Amino acid sequence: MNIKSYFPILDWGRRYNRQTLTSDLIAAIIVTIMLIPQSLAYALLAGLPPEVGLYASILPLIAYAIFGTSSALAVGPVAVVSLMTAAAVGRVAAQGSVDYASAAILLALLSGVMLMLMGLFRLGFIANFLSHPVISGFITASGIIIATSQVGGLLGIKTEGHAMPDLISSIVEHLGQANVYTVMVGAIALSLLLWIRLDLKNWLARFGLPTGVATIIVRAGPVLVVFLTMAMSVLFDLGAKGVSLVGQVPQGLPMLSLPSFTTDTIQQLALPALIISIVGFVESISVAQTLAAKRRERISPNQELIGLGATNIAAAIGGGFPVTGGFARSVVNFDAGAATPAAGAFTAIGIAGATLLLTPFLAILPKATLAATIVIAVLTLVDFSTLKRAWAYSKADFAAVVITMFGTLLLGVEVGISLGVGASILVFLYRSSQPHAAVVGLVPGTEHYRNIKRHKVDTVPGVLSIRIDESLYFANARYLEDLVINQVAANPGLTDVVLMCSAVNVIDMSALESLEAINERLSDLNIRLHLSEVKGPVADRLSGTEFLAHLGGQVHLSQHQAMLAIAERRLAAPTDDGWPLLKVI
Amino acid sequence: MNIKSYFPILDWGRRYNRQTLTSDLIAAIIVTIMLIPQSLAYALLAGLPPEVGLYASILPLIAYAIFGTSSALAVGPVAVVSLMTAAAVGRVAAQGSVDYASAAILLALLSGVMLMLMGLFRLGFIANFLSHPVISGFITASGIIIATSQVGGLLGIKTEGHAMPDLISSIVEHLGQANVYTVMVGAIALSLLLWIRLDLKNWLARFGLPTGVATIIVRAGPVLVVFLTMAMSVLFDLGAKGVSLVGQVPQGLPMLSLPSFTTDTIQQLALPALIISIVGFVESISVAQTLAAKRRERISPNQELIGLGATNIAAAIGGGFPVTGGFARSVVNFDAGAATPAAGAFTAIGIAGATLLLTPFLAILPKATLAATIVIAVLTLVDFSTLKRAWAYSKADFAAVVITMFGTLLLGVEVGISLGVGASILVFLYRSSQPHAAVVGLVPGTEHYRNIKRHKVDTVPGVLSIRIDESLYFANARYLEDLVINQVAANPGLTDVVLMCSAVNVIDMSALESLEAINERLSDLNIRLHLSEVKGPVADRLSGTEFLAHLGGQVHLSQHQAMLAIAERRLAAPTDDGWPLLKVI
Repeated sequence: MNIKSYFPILDWGRRYNRQTLTSDLIAAIIVTIMLIPQSLAYALLAGLPPEVGLYASILPLIAYAIFGTSSALAVGPVAVVSLMTAAAVGRVAAQGSVDYASAAILLALLSGVMLMLMGLFRLGFIANFLSHPVISGFITASGIIIATSQVGGLLGIKTEGHAMPDLISSIVEHLGQANVYTVMVGAIALSLLLWIRLDLKNWLARFGLPTGVATIIVRAGPVLVVFLTMAMSVLFDLGAKGVSLVGQVPQGLPMLSLPSFTTDTIQQLALPALIISIVGFVESISVAQTLAAKRRERISPNQELIGLGATNIAAAIGGGFPVTGGFARSVVNFDAGAATPAAGAFTAIGIAGATLLLTPFLAILPKATLAATIVIAVLTLVDFSTLKRAWAYSKADFAAVVITMFGTLLLGVEVGISLGVGASILVFLYRSSQPHAAVVGLVPGTEHYRNIKRHKVDTVPGVLSIRIDESLYFANARYLEDLVINQVAANPGLTDVVLMCSAVNVIDMSALESLEAINERLSDLNIRLHLSEVKGPVADRLSGTEFLAHLGGQVHLSQHQAMLAIAERRLAAPTDDGWPLLKVI
Repeated sequence: MNIKSYFPILDWGRRYNRQTLTSDLIAAIIVTIMLIPQSLAYALLAGLPPEVGLYASILPLIAYAIFGTSSALAVGPVAVVSLMTAAAVGRVAAQGSVDYASAAILLALLSGVMLMLMGLFRLGFIANFLSHPVISGFITASGIIIATSQVGGLLGIKTEGHAMPDLISSIVEHLGQANVYTVMVGAIALSLLLWIRLDLKNWLARFGLPTGVATIIVRAGPVLVVFLTMAMSVLFDLGAKGVSLVGQVPQGLPMLSLPSFTTDTIQQLALPALIISIVGFVESISVAQTLAAKRRERISPNQELIGLGATNIAAAIGGGFPVTGGFARSVVNFDAGAATPAAGAFTAIGIAGATLLLTPFLAILPKATLAATIVIAVLTLVDFSTLKRAWAYSKADFAAVVITMFGTLLLGVEVGISLGVGASILVFLYRSSQPHAAVVGLVPGTEHYRNIKRHKVDTVPGVLSIRIDESLYFANARYLEDLVINQVAANPGLTDVVLMCSAVNVIDMSALESLEAINERLSDLNIRLHLSEVKGPVADRLSGTEFLAHLGGQVHLSQHQAMLAIAERRLAAPTDDGWPLLKVI
């Protein structure tokens, strides 16, 4: 492995020119405008002061520009990871305390180190264990939880919890304390944002604005809502009327440093950090691959792990919290023409500038505006169509969606996703522990053998051919024994049994012992056991075992050769002339 | 399901006659003699008073005679389950306390209820997840732990713990307090038992004794050692010399009752009870099936679960602790000619008689004798040959043995077996997440397609046939995408890609989405994607999906038909005449 492959910037950096610079700069301006309100809002969602969201959108973007492989991916705070951060950090520290901020930084550091190690040791396949149904159920449930968690911000009441039961009961409990001015600000922000998203583009088009300009105005919409509600806040002195404002925040850029951690906190945050790493990676790589496919580019999953690792370590050093690639902003980045990861670095400069300029004004921003921003952003996450598709395709996949969704809603993000992964694995194991098997016969006029129940095929008396549709391993070894013995009992007068192994990809030691037991029992009944269509790797492993030495029959390359060999052997036997097998095949 | 099938006694009871009665009585006498010292010893191993071992060998045997399906299985206290009982109960109560005895009873009750529920709901397949390598590593490690735990009894010192580190450190710590008389009794018992097991039979044969009589004397050997050391105990007044004796025990048979339990204790013992149930069931069913095969009988696994459940509930009611079918005693029972489960009921009567007669004399029995009995009994459990066979056959299976063995030795029985099961499942998932795949070609003169790297086969330009040797599911969905795209990139000029699905037993929703993505990418490159050899159940599921509607190519019954169809299509195309595919196939 070339050291250069760890630094993709060395590759695209050499080809950088004025044209890519222009494309990247334009994309950076649009993404910066979009990212400002989102960064503030997601920090709040994570239980952190809003300026931390801006911090988490500076250094990480530069780190990804150096180590990332996607030209369009835009990293930063995202909704689901922010919710997971709140859930994890909330267990080790009280919200608002210094410890809480330190724990968020530690979580980003742990996640960064884990991602980087996974990349260096090429463990990207771990992400595969999040099946599509599990991801889909998890994202939908997270979207619902996040939207619900913002109801408090929109009503001006305090809510607690990171799962539906706690959230709903705390909303109900404090409903009487809702502040009417906050509700009004929230309602205005919410309706404006919804209108911007749904109608503004058409409305502008009716005025004859070119699509490009209209798109930019739509994307800048959330920032305009921020300025509008800031103006309202000053004009009507909303702070004095009980509307919760962001309040004074430290000015300037964050110090580059890491707080000190206790091993106790590290232990408590290790598992959440792992789950956040995997979820963040899956979310990010999906976006990156989708966009790369459109441009016929390749994404290297293991280098992406290293890139996201560096990104999160940078988030920790810059005083932020866990970040990853976001869907909406990456699409915007892509549409705006971002040509290289440099667009991300330019966005970072834009956010740094905004941080210096904005922080003095943030004091007057109503928190309800940020809550409205979050609610509108996460509505796209909620998608029940997977439930319908999964129900139609496979009840097992449907169960995985439902378990993940309700697990997450009722028990929280970490338990929910763990239940989903566990359920998918159990379903897979259960299915393979009771494999489909078919008695097969010859499709006339071919050398092809298929299920006697589904196809018009020829079989011959005395020979039973069983195709096992599964790798043979511990979970189905006993099942295999029962299957063969029962089939043999149901077909008296057998001389040969052929196990057609075209679908057997592994025979583990437990299954080998079961095959030995089957062979022994068949030998006692004077039946020869044959194997056919054994694959190379499986045959390699079997060679040299006791089983092959004791096998009553033989191992044949194809099912057809097995049948021919059995027929020839029979014809050669003086007692067995006139036997009809050869006529059939 | 017929109600009678739950009571196998109704079946064999009707055929009961004088001949089976005689066989059963003889077997019962031999097993009774063998069971007495073992019952006392295993109760001690479980941390319970020795008479509890006798209690656990009465009612449970009668319950098994009613509900069990094996004619030869002898149930009662066994070594591994007794060790697991000690480990589980030791965590909730102090050894020797009333709570300890109650907890052991509760453990038997929970285990019995769980086994019975597993039987009624036909969940016997759960036991399949204990692979042969895991069982083998677990039994060997348990044997070592049990033997080590008896060193204290042989030296007359107290030891603590149920895993090697604690045991060894407590032996070393108390070594100075060893009692010389205990050591002598232990050494005599140990050497006598070893001599009985290894040499006595040959020695008796040299005196011309018939094999039958010699066998009975050998089997009675351990009881003779018990009487011998009792005599020594009285003659030399060993109790006064510091030798630990069994001491006064309650006379007579146990009361039939159940102590009261707290929900707290039930929660703490639920998981250990489940593990004990599964281990006990696997041990028992393996013995039962091995012996049944010799007599061409069938064992019903789900009825065995019900039988063992009833057995353990009976153990709880009779004041015992968890029991299961034991290997050595079942073989003895089988060899002695036990014809029906009634042999077990007669054994129960024998043990009940012994309990009434023996308990007054137990007071003078040195505990070292029982320790020696255990050590000799568990030596047969220790078997390192699996390690060698597994190493030769598969490194994955070897890893499972080693992880289970060292996990059990170092961390205890429950953690050890859980680690083993977890490791086997992970290995299976990892293997299937990176499946073997082969580019295939036609074996000349046949319709059979095999790996181009292993066989001399014909391929045709423009067509790439890939056989995927695994079910397609979430863990390898992404891998599949990479595989196909990389293969296509490595073979320029393709017009058709055929995925040969002979080994694909399932396509789950994640894999379906990956197939859609592959089809889309190939379409962009003007390559048609075909599937061949799709199995019935998989084809059923695919029919009606969007994927089939969008598929660039077709689904073919066999790989050969796919190749023919591609060739015909090409010949039909006016631009493509003279194309060499049809000549090859």
